[in-house]
Amino acid sequence: MHSVTSSAGINRRVLISTAALLTALSGASIPSSAQTASSDGVLPSWNEGPARQAILDFVRATTDPSSPTYLPPEERIAAFDQDGTLWVEHPIYTQVVYCLDRVPAVVAKKPELRNVEPFKTVLSGNREAVARLPIRDLERILAATLTGMTVEEFHAEAKNWIGAAKHPRWDRPYTELVYQPMLEAIRYLRDSGYKTYIVTGGGQDFVRIYAGQVYGIPPEQVVGTAGGTTYGYAKDGTPILTKEPKLLLNNDKAGKPEGMHLMIGRRPVAAFGNSIGDRQMLEWTGGGGGARLRMLLLHDDAAREYAYGPASGLPDSKIGSFTPALYDEAKKKGWTVISMKNDWSRVFPFD
Amino acid sequence: MHSVTSSAGINRRVLISTAALLTALSGASIPSSAQTASSDGVLPSWNEGPARQAILDFVRATTDPSSPTYLPPEERIAAFDQDGTLWVEHPIYTQVVYCLDRVPAVVAKKPELRNVEPFKTVLSGNREAVARLPIRDLERILAATLTGMTVEEFHAEAKNWIGAAKHPRWDRPYTELVYQPMLEAIRYLRDSGYKTYIVTGGGQDFVRIYAGQVYGIPPEQVVGTAGGTTYGYAKDGTPILTKEPKLLLNNDKAGKPEGMHLMIGRRPVAAFGNSIGDRQMLEWTGGGGGARLRMLLLHDDAAREYAYGPASGLPDSKIGSFTPALYDEAKKKGWTVISMKNDWSRVFPFD
Repeated sequence: MHSVTSSAGINRRVLISTAALLTALSGASIPSSAQTASSDGVLPSWNEGPARQAILDFVRATTDPSSPTYLPPEERIAAFDQDGTLWVEHPIYTQVVYCLDRVPAVVAKKPELRNVEPFKTVLSGNREAVARLPIRDLERILAATLTGMTVEEFHAEAKNWIGAAKHPRWDRPYTELVYQPMLEAIRYLRDSGYKTYIVTGGGQDFVRIYAGQVYGIPPEQVVGTAGGTTYGYAKDGTPILTKEPKLLLNNDKAGKPEGMHLMIGRRPVAAFGNSIGDRQMLEWTGGGGGARLRMLLLHDDAAREYAYGPASGLPDSKIGSFTPALYDEAKKKGWTVISMKNDWSRVFPFD
Repeated sequence: MHSVTSSAGINRRVLISTAALLTALSGASIPSSAQTASSDGVLPSWNEGPARQAILDFVRATTDPSSPTYLPPEERIAAFDQDGTLWVEHPIYTQVVYCLDRVPAVVAKKPELRNVEPFKTVLSGNREAVARLPIRDLERILAATLTGMTVEEFHAEAKNWIGAAKHPRWDRPYTELVYQPMLEAIRYLRDSGYKTYIVTGGGQDFVRIYAGQVYGIPPEQVVGTAGGTTYGYAKDGTPILTKEPKLLLNNDKAGKPEGMHLMIGRRPVAAFGNSIGDRQMLEWTGGGGGARLRMLLLHDDAAREYAYGPASGLPDSKIGSFTPALYDEAKKKGWTVISMKNDWSRVFPFD
């Protein structure tokens, strides 16, 4: 299908899909048992198999009033990692692409950075040299491009970028590179009375910009890595919040349960991830009693997306690593591993 | 009315009132214009006057689809301070009473603190000496009683206390000392499609324990002062979150807009407060365009509750100070000052 892109860079199909999600949101949040008992028409991009069945069984177990593990609607909390779970994270995290793309604008405002590393290397356009930059340099780029402006300025800059930037492999906006089966899982859970959260190692302010449009998830349901802000005043006296280079919450690995406690204040009963960054989130989700759904997406589909592990003999990856140890733990604890290749009949909305 | 208290220390009237709030929650979130056009039956404990009218006008201006300041439901965010705005804060914040009451249990576990200040003074029961403790000592008591345990242990301890403790003046649970007109305002806004948040200088984990029952506000809609937690494991391997004496968010004064950005990610359009701790929250709420509701409760009713300012010639107060400068700013900026004495026909649900 050819991409029909509006002037704002938003694909119509995404808009239509989002409209459907929003319609679902505005309806009654408590489904009838008739709705929950039937799985006809739900999860159409999931092949019959243990992964699809795990979702159906979990929803029935927690929403059927006659189930011993029935949950009242207010306790139905589902958490989704973003990078590699809801959208493509290879060859590099989208937010890092944003930060690299913002470097010229930052240097234009602060010309003294032009010949200073790591900015000099980024400006050179030498991708291999950029890829070799040490973490410490990457952090300087993140701080320079994600902080120092008001929250409104950041919102406008990042929104503008996300509407225009395209992934090099598909030549489509990053917001189209979302996994259709996961959109269906989000929607099915929401239709079943679940409150759906994104719980991401990515920047909270960044993901909040498009999460409503892309996933139907409002800003207050995005838990992410967050820096502090400082309240102050513009020259005309208008109150402003300025983004500071001070880390409040590193929402990755053990930071995910910590972040969920801070932002949600209760334990999710369903959690979806894809890497070692999600291990503690799934573990914490399983810590309570009752029915639990814990799923990990394995990227084993080089043809339709990417193949990386190193679990299951797949190539190793610095980004979104799914280790053999994580795979073993999943099997041992009853976490469901989703095979992109075998469990999904369709990967993207545009497929 | 005599207090009918169950074994859990919860007054039936509060339960009934909460059930009504929850019923409102589960209904459709988008009201018909017929609902918003009529104010019959809403805000019954508010006397006719500018305060009640400000709420009615604001709701009409933001929910009537023909209004130029109409807001779609997802942008309807209302923020309520808690201490002194939703419930009684005198003679001392409820959470501080909790911390003082917990000192014997802390000392029982750590006997070496028995003869160490400030614990020694608290254990002495000398109220005047306790009242004279410097801030630094109070902070040590807060750290010793609010941190060091798992989030579940804290929840159980504080829930047990809040169900049993009583305010010395009314001899009733603190959770009954909520302002009936504010419960009605919360409910009216929620019935009008607003998402209602508590934005408190009090501890987020503390307020979350009873906010659902008392105000119909779920844990994820409580923004408060928050410390960090650390993810780890109990001896049996169960994952735990331990409350740490590390301040993440001081959700008071300028910290309120910062906290709302962190936790909600959008600017509220309505804000209710009562003291200098709420000034920046109201200012930030007013920073956007469109219709805005900003209200400050003035405690000018010594007969039914308390009288303190020092605004309007009322006695000065260390707790919940409403200064003449804040009063002047309110008048200048069109913030509505609610007179407890004149604007409320009823103060408490049990009146």
